[in-house]
Amino acid sequence: MAFIFPSRRVRRTPFSDGVEAAGVRGYTVYNHMLLPTVFHTTEADYRHLKTQVQVWDVACERQVQVKGPDARRLIQYLTPRDLSTLREDRCMYIPVCDQNGGMLNDPVLLDAGPDTYWISIADSDFLFWVQAVAGMGNFDVEVTEPDVSPLAVQGPLADELMSRVFGGAVTGLRFFGCGRFEWEGHEFLIARSGYSKQGGFEIYVNDTALGMPLWDALFAAGEDLQVRAGCPNLIERIEGGLLSYGNDMTRENSPMECGLGRYVSDNQLEHCIGGRALREEREAGSKRMIRPVAIEGMAPPSDRAWPLYADGRQVGRVSSAAYSPDFETTVAIAMVDRSHWDAGTALEVDTQDGMLSGVVQDRFWI
Amino acid sequence: MAFIFPSRRVRRTPFSDGVEAAGVRGYTVYNHMLLPTVFHTTEADYRHLKTQVQVWDVACERQVQVKGPDARRLIQYLTPRDLSTLREDRCMYIPVCDQNGGMLNDPVLLDAGPDTYWISIADSDFLFWVQAVAGMGNFDVEVTEPDVSPLAVQGPLADELMSRVFGGAVTGLRFFGCGRFEWEGHEFLIARSGYSKQGGFEIYVNDTALGMPLWDALFAAGEDLQVRAGCPNLIERIEGGLLSYGNDMTRENSPMECGLGRYVSDNQLEHCIGGRALREEREAGSKRMIRPVAIEGMAPPSDRAWPLYADGRQVGRVSSAAYSPDFETTVAIAMVDRSHWDAGTALEVDTQDGMLSGVVQDRFWI
Repeated sequence: MAFIFPSRRVRRTPFSDGVEAAGVRGYTVYNHMLLPTVFHTTEADYRHLKTQVQVWDVACERQVQVKGPDARRLIQYLTPRDLSTLREDRCMYIPVCDQNGGMLNDPVLLDAGPDTYWISIADSDFLFWVQAVAGMGNFDVEVTEPDVSPLAVQGPLADELMSRVFGGAVTGLRFFGCGRFEWEGHEFLIARSGYSKQGGFEIYVNDTALGMPLWDALFAAGEDLQVRAGCPNLIERIEGGLLSYGNDMTRENSPMECGLGRYVSDNQLEHCIGGRALREEREAGSKRMIRPVAIEGMAPPSDRAWPLYADGRQVGRVSSAAYSPDFETTVAIAMVDRSHWDAGTALEVDTQDGMLSGVVQDRFWI
Repeated sequence: MAFIFPSRRVRRTPFSDGVEAAGVRGYTVYNHMLLPTVFHTTEADYRHLKTQVQVWDVACERQVQVKGPDARRLIQYLTPRDLSTLREDRCMYIPVCDQNGGMLNDPVLLDAGPDTYWISIADSDFLFWVQAVAGMGNFDVEVTEPDVSPLAVQGPLADELMSRVFGGAVTGLRFFGCGRFEWEGHEFLIARSGYSKQGGFEIYVNDTALGMPLWDALFAAGEDLQVRAGCPNLIERIEGGLLSYGNDMTRENSPMECGLGRYVSDNQLEHCIGGRALREEREAGSKRMIRPVAIEGMAPPSDRAWPLYADGRQVGRVSSAAYSPDFETTVAIAMVDRSHWDAGTALEVDTQDGMLSGVVQDRFWI
């Protein structure tokens, strides 16, 4: 197991001091920034997440800020999702595509003030895309990466912990609702969202200097709740069918292939980048789709795509997998050809440690 | 020291099996791909690199392939460097900038065949920029990431090892010269280049399946030369003044600030993205510049930018630093304000472990 080498290029976050003090054991790199992956063990972190409350350093969900009179028009041009229902008290999950309909990122969009939007991104330099399109298209906007670092509070006790720090009103947020809440005289944009199925919030910490004070306040307020430092958990997110850009989907995949067709609005396909390709796929039907696959027994770490075979040929690939203690099987996310995507279909999974048997499921483990 | 967590998103390379068998101890992530950083210790790797020959997995230097009738015109639009002298037997180092003249990447450009160019990139998703500009500007090109993974052979014995595998003609390449050379019936584009000052080559391995066979062939041919698996070495690259995108320069910096002014051609500034901002900076003079700084004693790992102070105010920041056994000082790369960039200027360096003294040097340690 190799360690991660320190450099400025792999950026620390406003919460890194807290993460280190909490004994982080594993990291990944996400948007050129450190993202914790393990504190105790993946299994122990999973159990705690499902029963208590955790504070997650997800500063790596960087914001692409688009500000200016053409901001909304530009963002609508970038996504096939109809933004006419966007309101300042709601986040929106928006697929963004290249000219071929391939996914460039799967961010969350927030209205962050007058003519100002935050695109909270997954792991790709989507800022480059936005800035190039804005410049070439003469959109009157400024595109920047502001000093905003999300801190997530996740788990069944998240409402209790958040109400202690931000007041009870924060628990009134509905899923993907957002609002502004105060702590110690500082106002933060907070959403009921996060990369788990256990419920919780994301706090958009808009000043690096406030990072550790807020981190410490959450831990002080949650001591009796057994609050711990945590992070997106591989097992839990696969059980819940939460896709990871770069793992489960890449530029090779369309939103429909990723099961995100409900975020592709027919009325936008004449007007957005990639719209023509998406319309063609919608008319012809998708050739492959994200599917849950149960794999027998314990699979090795999914550090590469595993080809899926059936009837003597490749019919897809597994992109994420982990053994689930609760479901007593290896849970996996796969992209499966139409010919073999029906629930119940038996497949062979070609892992680095040998061939395993898998079965397409009708739904994720939720 | 935290380990790096396995996932498909952090891509393996065609040479990862060899890297692991050689006992890699440290990794970083570069262009969403594993890049080895340590095999023995940074100091032992450094000594070996300076005396023998190493084979480096630098597959993470991904290629942005631009192909089509408008390919050359597009690339000229993307860089302020005059490409009129580009030839198929020469690489060119090209800064690429956003509309504000900020560095987006500092790649090497290669002529890879008729109407086909490879942009061999540093750590940012420059493909997004190229594809967006191409699409918005109606350039008739295809922009892709081909199956091409550079493998570097670096060190004073690199010529000897390469001539054994590819034949003596390969040693006729001049610095940044390139050509096509054969091994076992496969032809590779090879350049005399690489991210060290010890001399050597980069082999553009254009088929994943050939990765490990070529790796093994190089090790078999170099056994008596004590060939080892290696990687870009932090100490050696700082001594040599080799900048790292994301460490020493970011979108906040212009090419001139990075000491790359000789790659900014006056005759291109009317025609390329960012040209206006670059011309303004050229006329006004740069406000800050990359400078070598010697820091007394042993500095801690440079995992963050260190502010530089003088006369009671911040006058720059250190972005890379390492203790050099050969020069018996901590060698560092810094961005220093004009007021304090003269050689001999004394500065205070604010590291995570306390304040250290530094002195601006007149040149890197070469």
